[in-house]
Amino acid sequence: MAIKALFIANRGEIAVRIIRAARELGIRTVQAVSAADRDMLAARLADAVVEVGPAHASKSYLDKTVMVQAAVASGADAVHPGYGFLSENADFAAMVEEAGLIFVGPRPQTIRAMGDKATARAMAAKAGVPTVPGSEGRVETPDEARRIARDIGYPVMIKASAGGGGRGIRVAATEAELDALIPQASSEAKAAFGDGGLYLERFIGRARHIEVQVLGDGDDVIHAYERECSLQRRRQKVWEEAPAACLAPAVREALCASAVRLARSVGYRGAGTLEYLYDPETGEFFFIEMNTRIQVEHPVTEMVTGIDLVRAMLEIAGGAKLAIAQSDVVLNGHAVEVRINAENPAKGFMPSPGVATALAVPEGAGIRFDTMLYEGYAVPPFYDSLLGKLIVWGESRAAAIVRLAAALEELHVEGLVTTAPLHRALARDAAVLAGDVHTRWLEGWLERGGLS
Amino acid sequence: MAIKALFIANRGEIAVRIIRAARELGIRTVQAVSAADRDMLAARLADAVVEVGPAHASKSYLDKTVMVQAAVASGADAVHPGYGFLSENADFAAMVEEAGLIFVGPRPQTIRAMGDKATARAMAAKAGVPTVPGSEGRVETPDEARRIARDIGYPVMIKASAGGGGRGIRVAATEAELDALIPQASSEAKAAFGDGGLYLERFIGRARHIEVQVLGDGDDVIHAYERECSLQRRRQKVWEEAPAACLAPAVREALCASAVRLARSVGYRGAGTLEYLYDPETGEFFFIEMNTRIQVEHPVTEMVTGIDLVRAMLEIAGGAKLAIAQSDVVLNGHAVEVRINAENPAKGFMPSPGVATALAVPEGAGIRFDTMLYEGYAVPPFYDSLLGKLIVWGESRAAAIVRLAAALEELHVEGLVTTAPLHRALARDAAVLAGDVHTRWLEGWLERGGLS
Repeated sequence: MAIKALFIANRGEIAVRIIRAARELGIRTVQAVSAADRDMLAARLADAVVEVGPAHASKSYLDKTVMVQAAVASGADAVHPGYGFLSENADFAAMVEEAGLIFVGPRPQTIRAMGDKATARAMAAKAGVPTVPGSEGRVETPDEARRIARDIGYPVMIKASAGGGGRGIRVAATEAELDALIPQASSEAKAAFGDGGLYLERFIGRARHIEVQVLGDGDDVIHAYERECSLQRRRQKVWEEAPAACLAPAVREALCASAVRLARSVGYRGAGTLEYLYDPETGEFFFIEMNTRIQVEHPVTEMVTGIDLVRAMLEIAGGAKLAIAQSDVVLNGHAVEVRINAENPAKGFMPSPGVATALAVPEGAGIRFDTMLYEGYAVPPFYDSLLGKLIVWGESRAAAIVRLAAALEELHVEGLVTTAPLHRALARDAAVLAGDVHTRWLEGWLERGGLS
Repeated sequence: MAIKALFIANRGEIAVRIIRAARELGIRTVQAVSAADRDMLAARLADAVVEVGPAHASKSYLDKTVMVQAAVASGADAVHPGYGFLSENADFAAMVEEAGLIFVGPRPQTIRAMGDKATARAMAAKAGVPTVPGSEGRVETPDEARRIARDIGYPVMIKASAGGGGRGIRVAATEAELDALIPQASSEAKAAFGDGGLYLERFIGRARHIEVQVLGDGDDVIHAYERECSLQRRRQKVWEEAPAACLAPAVREALCASAVRLARSVGYRGAGTLEYLYDPETGEFFFIEMNTRIQVEHPVTEMVTGIDLVRAMLEIAGGAKLAIAQSDVVLNGHAVEVRINAENPAKGFMPSPGVATALAVPEGAGIRFDTMLYEGYAVPPFYDSLLGKLIVWGESRAAAIVRLAAALEELHVEGLVTTAPLHRALARDAAVLAGDVHTRWLEGWLERGGLS
């Protein structure tokens, strides 16, 4: 049963993106807004607006009960969660369905299974999808650590079981280093997290972040090839591409096939992304996790495949089967997306909310700018700093980056400090132009004064 | 020798388009402006601006001597003429070359030959490209008219030799009608143009305007498939598409091959368009004329082929050979362009210059908006009324038109009356959606109150 009215449980540029897709399908849109978001672009474009709570997200966009009640009261028959906020909250998805509405995304149990790293890893193993070699769980004794490290192969990473976000990670290149680091890491973990438990994982020196876009209708699953998002700062992607220029065709095929296998094994429904680490030195790829929602960087895939992913999500949620066969998904050219954030690159990427007093946006052949901005818009300080995404297409990677550099010259946002200067510098950097980067490259470049 | 600095001998959206292509090639741009155009968008985007004369085009953009002198003085090594103004003026092209600059377009003699209808028609015949069957030259006697009309086949059109722009055209369905109309048409032509000379041509009842894009480097020529521009008002295109949905694949191949044959026969250099009439009842196409310049509607071709036509023009003018082979030109999806003019559709399309006090432009997947507008821009009353072109891409014609309708909802130009309401109505019209139109369809639709 096709969706008639859609409640948008999100804000910013992705809300605008969803409204555009809904409009093309003749779906009425109801935009949720916090008290701080009454003037946002999505509120101007939606057919109706519902205020869901105060500026603080925990009492509005993150409050499951409030959001479900608002969706029901609005007369909508479906809810799109966007990305972030409640988009990967299995309880929220279940509450939406229990209220008799369509959740635009996978089944709650899929979200729950993929949201648990251990379960996701086990399902990957079952589907024959490689994960990063490591200890299955905690390492209890130095002897066990040595045995496992020999299996994994040096260098190995020592991580705190209770840690996260890259904190407390150490690398051992030899058994002697491992012996020395294990007690040290354990006591540090104990001090930092109250838990001295450790686990080991293969260390990939120049790992690249590659992710595969899939689309499923609950029965069948297809892939829409991969993206590369190796340019990251503090594990936040800042520049994304499709396809990944570093992949040999045979690796690409194997990678995408593995993603389809895993997504099929859970009867995946909707748009999803399987994230991998790729080791260019060995040509191996390792599944890390699955995001069971639309991603920020989805437009690069749209640019090179012609598939409208958000429209497809809405069609599938409305009961449609996949409209395209795998053989119809053809890569065409190259696309790059850069995130324009309200952050000051010269001051450690400090958030810089404010009023966009003047705005000139790039236009023209091969240019797309997905944004929440308009002239006179006051960016509220309460949410993430993404203002917009500049996406460019070119017949080759080199042509796309040249176009990106030219388009960035046309972008002028007055009243706000943005990350555009970062991208202007990256678009001219020799390593970026050569595609010779990895997931820690950008931080090193910034430390070496790449921006100055 | 690649171009280093480009003088843009045009204004409006096409000047902006040329600047964008030049910027991607690292070419410095010098924008010509009349006294009325100092604030235009192209003047803001160009690296340098040169004032070439007063608002009146005959003393600025149309003054060959002034434009060549300004180009030389600016230090540019090449001149892009855009469309309109001096773009198909062979003398101007020759003057540019004589001044030692590159003219971004074909050789002056090609422009001259194709600019003369009789010569172009003769060259088409020589290249085996069909033209509309008709009298070769004037019809001198009623007997001759009868004989020729029998050859052409009824119905035939009777046109004044000295006429133009569709004035004084009559249609005879039978020999009796021809006998009656010939003296009448002759005396009317004598009264209107001072010349009673007539000629005959096949009348195509539901003719469609189809045109083939070619690209040549002086040696080789390729085509980038066709566009359909049948929706016209007073012979001005208002809505253009690529490809032409009405063509069978075999007809498309024959049509495009004919265009390449003709362009090759003149050793064509640059971007050019061969215009045809297509008779859907017989499947025949007839060459009308060649435009030896970039066309307003070129973006639809760019959207479905991925070729950047303006960039290719600049590369070729700089001495490069064609960068792509014919077999690499692949059609992908469907594109539609609509012209947003500063005209009032409710008042007979009266020009409506003014100030764009507020502006919201469509953005998102598959959307391109090539415009001269920015918020606060005062549209001068001296030039043509084109403000911008909304171009949309979809995986099918139906998807493209749905997206067009959605995008038009996002377009808001305050302070100016535009033709957007015309396109909103057309995008929902059953005949347009079915592609069941011809070159006189729109005028009939307007007369029947299509807009009300």
